[in-house]
Amino acid sequence: MLKLTFLGTSAGVPTRTRNVSALAVHAPMTGPGWYLVDCGEGTQQQLQRAHLSLHHLAAVCITHVHGDHCYGLPGLLASAGLGQRQRPLHLIAPPPVWQWLQATQQCTDLHLPYALAFTDIATLREQPLHLATSGQTSLRLSAHPQRHRSPSHAFRFELQQRQAKLDAAALHAIGLPPGPAWRALQSGQSVMHQGRPLHSRDFVHAHTRHLAAVLGGDNAQPDVLRSACQGAQLLVHEATYSQAALQKAGPNPMHSSAHAAAAFAQSANLPNLILTHFSPRHHGQAEQRLLMQEVRAAYGGNAFLAQDFDQFTLDFDGGLHRHTRSAQSDSQPTSACAQPR
Amino acid sequence: MLKLTFLGTSAGVPTRTRNVSALAVHAPMTGPGWYLVDCGEGTQQQLQRAHLSLHHLAAVCITHVHGDHCYGLPGLLASAGLGQRQRPLHLIAPPPVWQWLQATQQCTDLHLPYALAFTDIATLREQPLHLATSGQTSLRLSAHPQRHRSPSHAFRFELQQRQAKLDAAALHAIGLPPGPAWRALQSGQSVMHQGRPLHSRDFVHAHTRHLAAVLGGDNAQPDVLRSACQGAQLLVHEATYSQAALQKAGPNPMHSSAHAAAAFAQSANLPNLILTHFSPRHHGQAEQRLLMQEVRAAYGGNAFLAQDFDQFTLDFDGGLHRHTRSAQSDSQPTSACAQPR
Repeated sequence: MLKLTFLGTSAGVPTRTRNVSALAVHAPMTGPGWYLVDCGEGTQQQLQRAHLSLHHLAAVCITHVHGDHCYGLPGLLASAGLGQRQRPLHLIAPPPVWQWLQATQQCTDLHLPYALAFTDIATLREQPLHLATSGQTSLRLSAHPQRHRSPSHAFRFELQQRQAKLDAAALHAIGLPPGPAWRALQSGQSVMHQGRPLHSRDFVHAHTRHLAAVLGGDNAQPDVLRSACQGAQLLVHEATYSQAALQKAGPNPMHSSAHAAAAFAQSANLPNLILTHFSPRHHGQAEQRLLMQEVRAAYGGNAFLAQDFDQFTLDFDGGLHRHTRSAQSDSQPTSACAQPR
Repeated sequence: MLKLTFLGTSAGVPTRTRNVSALAVHAPMTGPGWYLVDCGEGTQQQLQRAHLSLHHLAAVCITHVHGDHCYGLPGLLASAGLGQRQRPLHLIAPPPVWQWLQATQQCTDLHLPYALAFTDIATLREQPLHLATSGQTSLRLSAHPQRHRSPSHAFRFELQQRQAKLDAAALHAIGLPPGPAWRALQSGQSVMHQGRPLHSRDFVHAHTRHLAAVLGGDNAQPDVLRSACQGAQLLVHEATYSQAALQKAGPNPMHSSAHAAAAFAQSANLPNLILTHFSPRHHGQAEQRLLMQEVRAAYGGNAFLAQDFDQFTLDFDGGLHRHTRSAQSDSQPTSACAQPR
């Protein structure tokens, strides 16, 4: 299961109801460590309201250098230090973000009591990064280029779970009832049955379950994420504008409309779509309803417009569950649990 | 009159009730332009809640380089740009803050549509800076070194108002009743009365009123502000710790206790004292009451513990008026209007 907490859903500037970009990702099966995708100004304050602890933050992943996606980094790092964090923190970002943090430390007398380990986001295009493993479950992260004014990447979080499944029918057929012998076979041991050995490999079939969510940064062309979205159960994409507002703004901002993101999700057969990163002009309830109409006209899957403090859980069966923590509810009625098509 | 709006009153890290340092200063007599003293992360969000407009922000004044006093700068500048600000913005700060902003612009693809005019804070130690004039009223700013881990300054805002006062008794004595002739004399003209000229200079006495507030940054030794506070009606000073907490923390943080700030205000004969920049350990109501007890034991003037969104007005007669906008009221009862001793 993957858990997403939206900490900021506004594009460019914060408003009184929505902060700038930040999204917390947690795979509880792999331990308490969680991941932060983007870190706009005020993210540390949002984390306090969402009751997320900096002690368990395992890595910060920055999609691109624009301030509404990274200006919260210095304060978040400083506060983790004042909170006596000691274990290293992983930063996955474009190199200019790393240069900026070094300048920040130098110019503002910032001394962190823990190490920052930097990985150039571009290396995750070639080779996924292994983030965590617990038991049979592991979490991997890859990066996928997008189209924007400055180099921007989407992140794909992929949870893999190896499962050993007993061939119950075959065991029943040879007269071995469920019990300690089944558990021994499942754990890889051989057992004796009616005077002959039964080997685990003959009755246990291993298979791997996958759960993938693609979390986009700023992106003018959703279609560039087609291969990144293969086999994914969820796409989180920007919808800075409505289709009409995008046409008025022209191509220079290099952002997407709700329509464009929805049409891509439909064509890529994605079962779940969450839109975020809304221009302040679209923050009102009426505007959010219009965006949702635009989505519904192009997309038949489960669609949501994220609000600050929305929490979603994505299960291995592709079910997406929304838990609204925000007082406001200005998109569609909270549909709670949505099963994939 | 000087108007102060506290936008952040926490030391080091934000909490759910108090943001990090920022203080808005406005002298309505000199026009709509206002001044921001320090700009911790999240200040632009606080400004929205306080209904203060970035369009009228005239200058940002940074006391020192620590992040809880300046990490909100990049986002605030970027948002002013996205809001189509065009007129130049004045930045008065230590040079490393200026270097950091230049690195920020370079590394994060930040292009501002207005000019940033930088003044090294140290130059305001020698020569006050003239900020604004309207009619007979002018506002000046000077900087005063403090004791902290990195170079830190307090700012003194001084409002001067030249007043031309008619000698009513003398005019009555020569038989000239109040009317158009009085107004002409007051505005500098001569008039004829009973066949002889009366000159303005003989009946108008000019004098200048002063109103000064000293707004401290981080400071381990309030006493270094003694000369800065001469003739001032108000000192805003940090009170990071209670006296007991300061003794426990030792001298390294280089901060003041509420007791130390209050004892200095008493010795400097300051009529008004506002304390701010409280360590999170002192944010609770009981802790705030203890800090106020510490202040009351050492200081006989009008004392306040600032909360986020508190607004104060300081009048030429030295009266300090508090307008609490925050929902919470965790220090002393809101005493509203306090006249100087």
